[in-house]
Amino acid sequence: MSTFEHLLAERTKRMGASAIREILKVVSQPGMISLAGGFPAPDSFPLELMNELSVRVLEKYGSRALQYDLTEGFIPLREALVGYFERINLEVPAEKILISSGSQGFLDAIGKVLITKGDKIGVEAPTYLGALQAFNPYEPLYTRIHMDEDGVIPESLEETVTKENVKFVYLVPTFQNPSGRTTTLDRRKKIADILQKYNVLAIEDDPYSALRFRGIPVPPLKSFAPEHVVYTGTLSKVLAPGLRIGFIAAPELIRKWLVLAKQGVDLHTSTFNQAIASEYIAGGYLYEHLPKIIQLYKPKQEAMLKAMESHFPSDFKWSRPEGGMFIWAEGPENSDMEKIYWKCVERKVAFVPGKFFFTVKGEGSETMRLNFTMVDNDKIEHAVMTISEILKENL
Amino acid sequence: MSTFEHLLAERTKRMGASAIREILKVVSQPGMISLAGGFPAPDSFPLELMNELSVRVLEKYGSRALQYDLTEGFIPLREALVGYFERINLEVPAEKILISSGSQGFLDAIGKVLITKGDKIGVEAPTYLGALQAFNPYEPLYTRIHMDEDGVIPESLEETVTKENVKFVYLVPTFQNPSGRTTTLDRRKKIADILQKYNVLAIEDDPYSALRFRGIPVPPLKSFAPEHVVYTGTLSKVLAPGLRIGFIAAPELIRKWLVLAKQGVDLHTSTFNQAIASEYIAGGYLYEHLPKIIQLYKPKQEAMLKAMESHFPSDFKWSRPEGGMFIWAEGPENSDMEKIYWKCVERKVAFVPGKFFFTVKGEGSETMRLNFTMVDNDKIEHAVMTISEILKENL
Repeated sequence: MSTFEHLLAERTKRMGASAIREILKVVSQPGMISLAGGFPAPDSFPLELMNELSVRVLEKYGSRALQYDLTEGFIPLREALVGYFERINLEVPAEKILISSGSQGFLDAIGKVLITKGDKIGVEAPTYLGALQAFNPYEPLYTRIHMDEDGVIPESLEETVTKENVKFVYLVPTFQNPSGRTTTLDRRKKIADILQKYNVLAIEDDPYSALRFRGIPVPPLKSFAPEHVVYTGTLSKVLAPGLRIGFIAAPELIRKWLVLAKQGVDLHTSTFNQAIASEYIAGGYLYEHLPKIIQLYKPKQEAMLKAMESHFPSDFKWSRPEGGMFIWAEGPENSDMEKIYWKCVERKVAFVPGKFFFTVKGEGSETMRLNFTMVDNDKIEHAVMTISEILKENL
Repeated sequence: MSTFEHLLAERTKRMGASAIREILKVVSQPGMISLAGGFPAPDSFPLELMNELSVRVLEKYGSRALQYDLTEGFIPLREALVGYFERINLEVPAEKILISSGSQGFLDAIGKVLITKGDKIGVEAPTYLGALQAFNPYEPLYTRIHMDEDGVIPESLEETVTKENVKFVYLVPTFQNPSGRTTTLDRRKKIADILQKYNVLAIEDDPYSALRFRGIPVPPLKSFAPEHVVYTGTLSKVLAPGLRIGFIAAPELIRKWLVLAKQGVDLHTSTFNQAIASEYIAGGYLYEHLPKIIQLYKPKQEAMLKAMESHFPSDFKWSRPEGGMFIWAEGPENSDMEKIYWKCVERKVAFVPGKFFFTVKGEGSETMRLNFTMVDNDKIEHAVMTISEILKENL
């Protein structure tokens, strides 16, 4: 019996077991009501349609749907996405659209292409953990950009890009994971100006913007600074995450290198799934099905917000996002939501303590992320009440 | 208009446009008879069965087939693979089997987990290009292990692992791409002894062993040194590459790190495709369908070998593999198969000049790889005759 500890690469230590994974292990215990996840509701998937589309793509494309394909992506899917992009104010020709194996596949590729050990990356505080997980093996340092209820604070972004020599900034401008916040239109324009003024590259990760329950859509950051933003979207929240389909519009030089990086990583994304996705979009099913997903999530979010208003301690504030999958709550300064988490878990309710989404240790201990897409409607009030009781008992 | 050339990571230069990609661009010209590819024949895909299985998995697993899933892989697929492994003399419990997005996804992950810039990797001469493409971004150096008609030469392996401090050796022991060679049983045992004696880790990449037309199956290298070999297989050649399903059996420490690496790269492989793959294997369809693929390829290979015997110049020698997808031919020393390639392309026949599969510049200029799975039966003799004529005119 041999151990190969000595063979591990230097970078590998950066990929170690994460604290959040450890604490969330208990979430799968039987009887747990989880507000901790980030999964779409299983009943949001168009099962019958999937059936139809699978059969149809095998008929339409035959063996082509099962063969190796271009690293850039299946051409009919890229053609279908042109219209998708147009609806969100982005003009991207099919041949410039890239397909990735989920947005995660793109985040890994951007890390591979851009990050040399020790490079600084600007990220929101709080930020999306999956992005850090994708970037970490390339050994960057993180520098944080502050946010408030209106999203990224442009002055903080400007300070970051002028004081720190960042390789790029990573942003989730709409219904951010974890905070649910949306960077306002006005701020997007200011951010675009900053990117252009200082020639800074931004990654705009946009998995949630289609899940808008209320209010007016805000065009993507990329629409205000097309040459300075790499935009990535996904079908994980509007079709099915199990297909692992993401898509990208990037400045030309970045696009070319992303293709080469992806070729080494997975050759290409599943042709069969891309063919299904192309039918879903080109056939107009996405825009037929999307209102059903929204009709599923909106009442859940409303119920959760209502329960929080009725029960949460008065010294808490929380986001009221116009869409997405998360509500972000902040308690009094220095309160410890990990402590609260463990007490809630004893009472079979789980959420995510917000501190795990911060790159600076010690920040965010007073915050929590609540997901509303996976919880049954009739359990929402009970879950929020339980958390509220424990908060009141312990703070 | 901005360019971000200055943002590229140091590693990125290693991922540049490859010479082989450039020369193979002409292969897609209309009318070209290509022996250059490495694709399975489109008529080897069980289209109707795919139809059936897609419908069945949606019925059987419902939304689970479309949801996020474990990074390690979809449990029913891993359970089905236990029997697959048993048939090739490997005992691997389901919970230790990993699923990857094609073998390529695994090769990237192993590079990420093990290679620090400047590390030495032992590879066969010639070797599989996709592996180099997966490893290159992690900036290794390559040291070559010599082969002959019986596969890897154990003495050359021993010299490599004793003289060079290699991180691991990468081997394709059965019907190797590009050479078609199979390392003999006797040599496998010797190689296993060397791995154990010097505590060296080997990657055994095995996409082709199921495509055996003749002769007796040779157990995988891993069966002789289970704790020193990471084994990877794929469904790309026995079901459909468009599903991007690979599978892995690794020593425990390596297994754990591969999971963490994969999580950052794509979260998990398509659940839907894994569900289809699990039905394909667990339902016994793989072993029903495989003989049909063999019946498709065997006559093609026989026709190509026969045509080569009739037409190739007498100073050429070539492999007569008992399976796989490739025939490897070697001309007189110092002959230049890239020159021959361009002349063949003018006459609408393509192959791959073998020098591109060597990590040492200048080696292999006299070699060529011929693929027989993608060419129509009635074009094989014409293609071989054309190459033969050009060889005779130019050497």
